[in-house]
Amino acid sequence: MTTVELVEYEDADIEVRRVYDDIISTRKSYGQTIGTDQINNFWKALAVHPKLMQKTWESVKSVMTSPTIDMLTKELIYIAVSVTNGSQYGTVTNIAAARDLGMTDEMFAELMALIGIANQTNVLANGYQLDVDPTFLSR
Amino acid sequence: MTTVELVEYEDADIEVRRVYDDIISTRKSYGQTIGTDQINNFWKALAVHPKLMQKTWESVKSVMTSPTIDMLTKELIYIAVSVTNGSQYGTVTNIAAARDLGMTDEMFAELMALIGIANQTNVLANGYQLDVDPTFLSR
Amino acid sequence: MTTVELVEYEDADIEVRRVYDDIISTRKSYGQTIGTDQINNFWKALAVHPKLMQKTWESVKSVMTSPTIDMLTKELIYIAVSVTNGSQYGTVTNIAAARDLGMTDEMFAELMALIGIANQTNVLANGYQLDVDPTFLSR
Amino acid sequence: MTTVELVEYEDADIEVRRVYDDIISTRKSYGQTIGTDQINNFWKALAVHPKLMQKTWESVKSVMTSPTIDMLTKELIYIAVSVTNGSQYGTVTNIAAARDLGMTDEMFAELMALIGIANQTNVLANGYQLDVDPTFLSR
Amino acid sequence: MTTVELVEYEDADIEVRRVYDDIISTRKSYGQTIGTDQINNFWKALAVHPKLMQKTWESVKSVMTSPTIDMLTKELIYIAVSVTNGSQYGTVTNIAAARDLGMTDEMFAELMALIGIANQTNVLANGYQLDVDPTFLSR
Amino acid sequence: MTTVELVEYEDADIEVRRVYDDIISTRKSYGQTIGTDQINNFWKALAVHPKLMQKTWESVKSVMTSPTIDMLTKELIYIAVSVTNGSQYGTVTNIAAARDLGMTDEMFAELMALIGIANQTNVLANGYQLDVDPTFLSR
Repeated sequence: MTTVELVEYEDADIEVRRVYDDIISTRKSYGQTIGTDQINNFWKALAVHPKLMQKTWESVKSVMTSPTIDMLTKELIYIAVSVTNGSQYGTVTNIAAARDLGMTDEMFAELMALIGIANQTNVLANGYQLDVDPTFLSR
Repeated sequence: MTTVELVEYEDADIEVRRVYDDIISTRKSYGQTIGTDQINNFWKALAVHPKLMQKTWESVKSVMTSPTIDMLTKELIYIAVSVTNGSQYGTVTNIAAARDLGMTDEMFAELMALIGIANQTNVLANGYQLDVDPTFLSR
Repeated sequence: MTTVELVEYEDADIEVRRVYDDIISTRKSYGQTIGTDQINNFWKALAVHPKLMQKTWESVKSVMTSPTIDMLTKELIYIAVSVTNGSQYGTVTNIAAARDLGMTDEMFAELMALIGIANQTNVLANGYQLDVDPTFLSR
Repeated sequence: MTTVELVEYEDADIEVRRVYDDIISTRKSYGQTIGTDQINNFWKALAVHPKLMQKTWESVKSVMTSPTIDMLTKELIYIAVSVTNGSQYGTVTNIAAARDLGMTDEMFAELMALIGIANQTNVLANGYQLDVDPTFLSR
Repeated sequence: MTTVELVEYEDADIEVRRVYDDIISTRKSYGQTIGTDQINNFWKALAVHPKLMQKTWESVKSVMTSPTIDMLTKELIYIAVSVTNGSQYGTVTNIAAARDLGMTDEMFAELMALIGIANQTNVLANGYQLDVDPTFLSR
Repeated sequence: MTTVELVEYEDADIEVRRVYDDIISTRKSYGQTIGTDQINNFWKALAVHPKLMQKTWESVKSVMTSPTIDMLTKELIYIAVSVTNGSQYGTVTNIAAARDLGMTDEMFAELMALIGIANQTNVLANGYQLDVDPTFLSR
């Protein structure tokens, strides 16, 4: 039920193809094997507007290739956000990518339990309208 | 503007004190120094109902002490959920705990950028109503 | 930091005053004592646009006076939504109204625990991308 | 997997039919051609409770026919809310209505990029716990 | 599209089976007939990690069997949270359970209208950045 | 309670100052007068990591200067997202910017009512688990 016509590689203009190629090679550069043979629907949808799509990719790329947090940890964090938001696309694709990068069943179960606890305690803090304890305020 | 009367250590009964003590010693066991001299408001609010509070703590403890994902990574994930939910209490307390466990300014900036990107791409996937690409479906 | 100028009773025109009066008398009719001496900020903000405010009130009134679910249960549900959304205004005002209608400390603690569990299990269902079991589908 | 039995026009009582008719004619009045030959599932679900459904419609109608913001802009805003909430029904139906009223592919791409940026910057403001700058406070 | 392999009763070890049995008998104890012949997908997914699953169940059980709020009211609250979060699994399964415990069509329509109003007023309070009225602050 | 040390103009390095200058001049270019004398907290927080901050700004700039949707409409949409997310910073700053660009009190009231209705109907669609009507599916 996609709300736009996806732009396939063979129908893309040179500007879009260059971004598609960069996405694939960037993924390979950090050891991902999944989603490296074909560009995924996300980028095919954004490609309807090449200029905005290019800026989005540059922004995503700058974060994903920033060297401080390792790639698998980044995927765990991406999953946490996607699950919290109820995003099916973000959840399923990032779980697949995380498994590809080494996430085991045990890690996944622990991650899920943690996401559950964090959401539970967040709403409890809302309900009790808790003030942040002074000890946590010193930056 | 807390919506319940917080239960201070000196006013707590023996059952609640035992949980308070376990929280402090569990935190120390994984190297946390912040929030280890005094119990924080979250637990003081839940302590109004000792039985439910104890079950919540056991559930939280089982996740936080589960050995597969290291403690600092767990804090990064906790921050990601709290920020996505807009929980001030969860955001500020877990950032403090993460810094206490070694999160640098650079890691924090990268984490924040990642959380931003994940939320951005999640809503884009909503708007385009993307189907998950078949390549990401093979478990 | 209100984003509009609130409309006080003495500055309100006849149309708005009639709604203000109806709000107060409707509250009294189902036994509420809190928020019955003075109109609250929510309606003072909406009153900037009397016509839209009146329609909103009629819609709210039709739900609050619908006779099937009792008023205290309605307040518990209102709290559950407000806490889940992280709405401070909705959380604090409806907790006050629920206490006014008889919610005890024990009920409140149980309610909060339930809201926490519901949010936790909702995100777990997201993360595992669970299909609804056939047995729950027969309407 | 609808959770109620939808009320079709031919099975509806006179009160519900009058609302159905008003919905169709209101849509036509602001130039919509889609969803004007048949009432849509949303209203068929609410019609289970005619009185509440009527009040909801009156409230929706007062907003949609309020003359200050033009209809296409209203649809763009409706899409922004629906996408942010992850509502498939709201997203798909309002995108269709917006296209019907003149939204081009380019506008849609720009709208989506804007929704993405707004969600990204909202969570960044959460994570940094930013105070509103004084210059933005003067109403 | 479940993201883990579900653990069926016949493949479960003794620890997991004991939890499965307790879930079924607990449900029967408060008069539920739906979901009592077979364990549902939620628990089959969590069972991948028996220890965390057991703690989650104990936490859920402590809330569901806590005696102050009756079981049907609990289900209404669970539905309110699930609908607000956009959780399909939580929405459909808890609506089924609530109907099983006596929720009528009229109650359901009123519940839905209330959830709608609560979400509407929550965002209006956000937009107007309302301060909580002093009268609602006295605990 | 900001979670990072803000980077003031006088303490910023040349790279960051160039972005700050570009933000101010871009705002002026589309007629904004508010937030043009001083850079706001949002960018001062991101400036801790100049490289990521620069990419974020380029991405934001590409959207805000994209020519299809006019600037005031963009602000209305930004407000709709911010209010729906409960983001105080996004809500207050974008309302100020929208007023600066010509949003009247009447437009604001109508916008707020629309955001309220959209959130209300989104959750109703969740609760009834509505299928999208075939007529809205033809792209």
